[in-house]
This record gives sequence, C-alpha cells and structure tokens, in this order.
Amino acid sequence: MARILIQGGTILPMTSRQDICQGDLYIVDGKIAGVFPGKAPEEIQGPDLQVIDGRNKAVLPGLVNAHTHAAMTLFRSYADDLPLMRWLNEAIWPAEAKLTGDDVYWGTMLAIAEMLKSGTTVFADMYFFMDRVAEAVAESGIRGHLSRGMISFGASAEKAIVESEELFQRWNNGADGRVKIWLGPHAPYTCTPDYLKRVMELADRLGTGLHIHLAETQTEVQDITKQYGKPPIQLMDSIGLFERPVLAAHCVHLTEEEQNILATKGIGVAHNPESNMKLASGIAPVESLRQKGAVMALGTDGAASNNNLDLIEEMRQAAFLQKVHLLNPEALPAYAALEMATIGGARALGWDDMIGSLEVGKRADITMVNLAQPHLCPSHDVVAHLVYSARGSDVDTVLVDGKVLLREGKLTSLDESRIMEEARLRAIRLTTDSPAQ
Amino acid sequence: MARILIQGGTILPMTSRQDICQGDLYIVDGKIAGVFPGKAPEEIQGPDLQVIDGRNKAVLPGLVNAHTHAAMTLFRSYADDLPLMRWLNEAIWPAEAKLTGDDVYWGTMLAIAEMLKSGTTVFADMYFFMDRVAEAVAESGIRGHLSRGMISFGASAEKAIVESEELFQRWNNGADGRVKIWLGPHAPYTCTPDYLKRVMELADRLGTGLHIHLAETQTEVQDITKQYGKPPIQLMDSIGLFERPVLAAHCVHLTEEEQNILATKGIGVAHNPESNMKLASGIAPVESLRQKGAVMALGTDGAASNNNLDLIEEMRQAAFLQKVHLLNPEALPAYAALEMATIGGARALGWDDMIGSLEVGKRADITMVNLAQPHLCPSHDVVAHLVYSARGSDVDTVLVDGKVLLREGKLTSLDESRIMEEARLRAIRLTTDSPAQ
Ligand SMILES: [Zn+2]
Ligand SMILES: [Zn+2]
Repeated sequence: MARILIQGGTILPMTSRQDICQGDLYIVDGKIAGVFPGKAPEEIQGPDLQVIDGRNKAVLPGLVNAHTHAAMTLFRSYADDLPLMRWLNEAIWPAEAKLTGDDVYWGTMLAIAEMLKSGTTVFADMYFFMDRVAEAVAESGIRGHLSRGMISFGASAEKAIVESEELFQRWNNGADGRVKIWLGPHAPYTCTPDYLKRVMELADRLGTGLHIHLAETQTEVQDITKQYGKPPIQLMDSIGLFERPVLAAHCVHLTEEEQNILATKGIGVAHNPESNMKLASGIAPVESLRQKGAVMALGTDGAASNNNLDLIEEMRQAAFLQKVHLLNPEALPAYAALEMATIGGARALGWDDMIGSLEVGKRADITMVNLAQPHLCPSHDVVAHLVYSARGSDVDTVLVDGKVLLREGKLTSLDESRIMEEARLRAIRLTTDSPAQ
Repeated sequence: MARILIQGGTILPMTSRQDICQGDLYIVDGKIAGVFPGKAPEEIQGPDLQVIDGRNKAVLPGLVNAHTHAAMTLFRSYADDLPLMRWLNEAIWPAEAKLTGDDVYWGTMLAIAEMLKSGTTVFADMYFFMDRVAEAVAESGIRGHLSRGMISFGASAEKAIVESEELFQRWNNGADGRVKIWLGPHAPYTCTPDYLKRVMELADRLGTGLHIHLAETQTEVQDITKQYGKPPIQLMDSIGLFERPVLAAHCVHLTEEEQNILATKGIGVAHNPESNMKLASGIAPVESLRQKGAVMALGTDGAASNNNLDLIEEMRQAAFLQKVHLLNPEALPAYAALEMATIGGARALGWDDMIGSLEVGKRADITMVNLAQPHLCPSHDVVAHLVYSARGSDVDTVLVDGKVLLREGKLTSLDESRIMEEARLRAIRLTTDSPAQ
C-alpha cells in the first residue's frame, strides 16, 4: 500500500470556493483518501508514509488541457504572423505531410515534458499516429484523452474509421486507466454530415464520445451556412451529433440559439483563448456560455498557434479577454477560470468521475504551485495569484495517479535533454525544403 | 577597468532584425564596447576578463517597463474582479491612504526584485514618496525613471510642485546616472489645464519631461469632452503639453486625429495591455499608432491591475490583443512587440541615448534568456520564442550598467526573503480594517 501525505498546503479542492483551506491531503494507492483542513489525524503516521512538504504551496487538481495537438510542438515558432491559409498551405501542411510515427512520438514527448512542468496532468489530443501518442502517455505517466483525427475526403476517410476502432480496442482504459479513447472527426468543413453519421454510429457501438472543432472562424461559419443552410452548431444538432458525449473545441462564433444548444445538451466546450488571439479567429462568448450553465473547459490548441502549452497563462488569458471584450471587469472572475482549467475540463472530457477535483475516491492527479516568490507576494488571495500572477514555471510538484512526475520542478519520468535533442533534429528535417520561410 | 565578455550567445541588438546573430558581446566599464558576430577578437582575452557563458541564451537589451506604480505590489491580489470605481473607492484608495515612506520603499523593492528576475532593467514609475523609490533604485542597482504623482485638487497640489522640484534637484542623474526625474501630472481629469500649465513651466525650467495618464477609459474621454469640448489628447495638444518630452500611459480611446497628434509630436505611448484587459478599459489602437510612426512602449501598470510585472508576458499580450482585435494575424508581429519592450521603451523614456539597444557606447543593460527548455524547443525563430513562448522566469542573467544583478535566476544585490517578509507584513497592515473584502 503506497501512502503519501501532502502536509500543510493551501488546498484548493475545486468543489467550492468555500472549501479552500490550509491543511493536509492524504493519498492511498494513487487515490485521494482524505482532505483534512488543519491537520490529518495522528493514526495516518507510520514509517511507510511518504511526506511531501506543502508549506507555501497551493495544492490543486492537476490542470486539464482540453484541446491540443501535442506533436505540433515540432512546429513551434515555425512561420508565425502569417494569414491563416498561407500559414496552413505554405508552412504547416507541407511539414505535417512529412511526419512519421517517430516524429509524433517525440513531438508528443516534448509536449508532455512541457505540460507536466507547467502543472497539466491530462490532455485531450487530436492528431495522427495516435498509437504512438498513447505510447508516450503510457511511458511518461501523464493521463491522455486521445482521438485520431478523421477527415471524410480522400483515401484516409475509411482508414480513419478502421484505425479509430483499432485504437479504441487497443488503448481505451489502457496504461492503468490513464488512457481514454474518443473519436476525432476533425470539423464540419472537413467531414460531411454522412461521414459524421458513420462516426456517430461507431461511437455509439463503442460507447465512447467525440472530439471535434466547431465554429472556430467566421469563414467556417459562413461556408457551412452557405452549404447547409445553418451554422455549425445548429447543423451538428440537426444531425444528432450532440446525443452522446461531445468535446467541442473553439466555439468562437455562435448565435444565441447555438449557445443554448451547447448549454442544454451538456456539450464540453474547450475554449482556446491564445490560439484564437494569435490566429485572429475571434473572441468566444465564454462568459455568456458560462452564465447559461455550459460545461466550460480550457485548451492550448497546438503549440504552433499558441506558442506554448501553459494552462496557467491560458486561465489568465481567458479571464482578461472576457473582461476587455465585454468591458466588464467582473466578467469571468479568477475562480471561474480556475474551474475551467480543472473540474470544468474534467467534465468536458467525460472524466469527472476520476479527476478534476480533490475529493475522496478520485485519482490523485495533483499540481503544487510554489507561492514563495516575489511575483506571488503578498498573498491577499491565492485564487487571484494562481490566475492573474502565476506562471507555468511556478509549478513545483506534479502527481498523476499518485506518482510524483515532477519534483522541485524536475521531471522524474522523462529524459528532458534527450527529448529536446530528438525534437530539434526532427524539426529541422520536417521544415527543410518546405516552401515557406 | 572592468571587462566582461558574453560569449557565444544569440544576440538581438534591436537595431534591426537583420542584426540578430550568434556572437560575442564585449563590455568595458559598464558600457557596450563591441558586438561581434561569430567571435570577439583574440586580443580581448586576458586574466582580468570576466566571461559569461552565452550558449543557448538569447542576449537582448534589458526590458523597459514604461509605466508602473511599483509599490502597488503591496496590493497585488487585493480585491480583484471588481468594477473600477468600487475597486478604487472601497479597496485601493483607503489602503493607499495608509501608505508610509517605508511601505513605498519595501513595496518598490518587491517590484524591483520581480522586475529584475523577469528581465526588466529600467522602469518608469509614478507614485508617492518618490525619494524612497529613488533610494530603492540606488541600492538595488536597477535603473529608474521616476515621477512624483501630481494632482491639482486639495492641499497636495502645491506640495506636489515643490516636492517634484526637490526630487529633481536631489535625484536627477543620481545613482551614477541610473536615475532620471520627470514630472508626473496624474491625468487630465485630476489636473486642471491651469495646473498643467504650471507643471509645464516647471518642466521647461528644469529641462525635463512629463509622465501622464491619457485616455485610459471611455468615461474619462466622455467627461473631458463634456467639460472642455475636446477629448484628452486634443485638449493636451491645445494647451501645448506636447511641446516637450511626454510619456503618455494608456492612450486607449483615441480619434484618428489624436493618433496623428501623438505620432507627429513624437509622444512616447506606454501601452499597458494586461491592465487595460483586467480593468476592462478597452483595446488601444497600437497597430494603427505603430503604422503612423508613433513611439510605442510597453508597461505593466501597477501590480494591483495586472497582476504581475512580467514584460515578456506583456509583449505577448500586446501582439495577441492586436491580432484578435483587428482579426488580422499579421498585426503587431513578434519583432515589433520586442521593439516596444526595448528600444521603443527607451525612446519613450527619453533615454535612447544610453539604453534600449545593444550598440557600442550605450550602457550595458542586458537581459539573457535561457532557451534550453522544453517550451522554447525546437528553435525555428528566436524572436517568436521570446514573444510568444517565453516567460519572465526564463530570464537567467541580468546586467545593469555592466553589473550582474541576476545570475542563474538569483538576485545578487537584494535579500529576496527579507523583502517578501517586509511586504507581507506591510500588506496585512495596509489592508486590515479597510472596508472592502
Ligand atoms: Zn485544434
Ligand atoms: Zn497607471
């Protein structure tokens, strides 16, 4: 029996703001066994108890990155500040066409290293070579919610359906339950309604959910409306997409009616503020969705459009962007942003039975932030500090499933230099002789 | 003769994008004595030469925080997510009323610790007890552009004029030239035109410039227009304010004509994106001003409305905010944001004869960023990395006037724990029994 006590921390269970306390957190065999305001009971002590010093640290649920394309770390800082279609056509797509399974493995490892170091314990990924992504998840100890990207055009349309089922059979609930497989139809503009219906049938047969991009740009909304007579969310609703768990990335351009659909159907909305800003996609109606009771989560999108995978930065961005957009400093307060990055994300991923809050019985996915630093001093309000002042680099300790994957800012399960060297060499190969730059 | 060689770094002189190179930077007696692409000449070697390893580091001019109220670190995370007038009336002003000179000294020291650790080597400050701020600048080794806040109402109106002159006489060009004193008329809504004219006379007599808040909120623009028949920038132009060096903070709500005035008169514009977002002030027309050739700088504003003093974050925010606001991913490219935080800031502070770029003869104010980290890998483009991926905590080494003030992320001139403890205790005293919270 493995027993851990995180002692004397500022615990943010993310069940309610009122539950924030100074106290001890007790972990047994990878599960949370007790949250004790003040001190844990004496009888917990024993020579086998591993103690982690929580003093001057915030102790919160591991952060949930609800939308990314992890291996795109390989294209970080490649061809920035370009119009979207030039960026895709001339830079990203030609480089992606050269990707091998090994590239995706190492690019994902680089993403995992960065995510663990900045407090993320689970990521929802949509990409190619997802068996290699699952391998990286299994080896690193992080948690992964994985979907193979599916597109209805060309030869890969059928292959995507076959491979998605294979991926599900091989990996769903794999790596001691740390891997969840959903299906990944890319978007309404890359998947026809007929194709989406086949994906829905497969999802229902497997008993799983869908991860999809929806309403990311104004162009998409115009094109879909022109082609099908209704905007993306309405179109998806009309074909019955929302009758099963759905994780919808972006949701930037929405009618009031579409916002109501997302809220009513309990769709997980993965908001990606930095990607939406950098690619100039627009500002999602996050505060409005939240007021309607939608399930709100936060993602980074791929590193090429961000350009990092730092969810603490993303929380701040979500809050700031709503405030300035609505000209209302009370919009999306700090605690709501923190909810999006934790319990909201867990709900959006269909995983809140196991993660997203510090409650007895949930898995011990935990992030500890070092508060003893000039930019987090003085300490009037720990929630405001985490959202408005902190950085990913303030993360000191990370546990997934009760295993310490980051200790004093150092990765315990990964060879960081090897990963960076592999990524560096592969990035050069992938982008050499590409038309852009 | 003190001689330093920064060897084998990625040097960004900020003279032009084409000048970015791998090379050595040579410093003699606090001044830049050579920028050498490739290798410095052999004859520089010698037993007295101090060598700093630049490998895997970006070497750039120290960052310029062009607008802040440093001691407001004491109110960081105090009363967030409130409407502006409640925040000021119920939280900030009652707490500020209790400030002593010692509080301002320690609050400023906390700000300086945070700024040095995140690569800022000079800050433009407007606050009270500025002699104590100057002391903190002198002792810490940072560079300070200091203005005593002036308001035309009440007993302090006259006092502000007298004390500003005293401050100038005592401190301008003090601390080995690291202190510059300008006058700090707070804003058009707190200083009448008659009072501003007296401030202008004093500035001209002393041969110095003015640091002022302009057009921060829509309310200010409406009130000023109602009272004086023209919006703030036009009003300032009509009373002749812009006929001397002026550093104008915010400039959020501007007519086209006002943008032209700022550009034509060479006014330094300190853009504070995170403060404008958090307080929901609005989005400044930064890209438009830049296209018109205005002198553009970046600031954090006080920590209470930010909530940190991280200029790297502020660069990213400036770029992202313009892109999403204009729905144009090409708006405010990374290099332009980096210019704002370096040479643009130096120009806005009237200090580009001495700092803001790495050129022979300028003072050796230098920031080195550690690039060997997962979130800065791979390295297609160092400028994109610094603006879009980096964090203040990636700063490894900082020199001001050729003195190493930060080494491997550790402050050399300040007692960080003492500063945090002083700030913590003072923050408690200042905010206890205040009506808010
Ligand atoms: Zn995406
Ligand atoms: Zn200000």
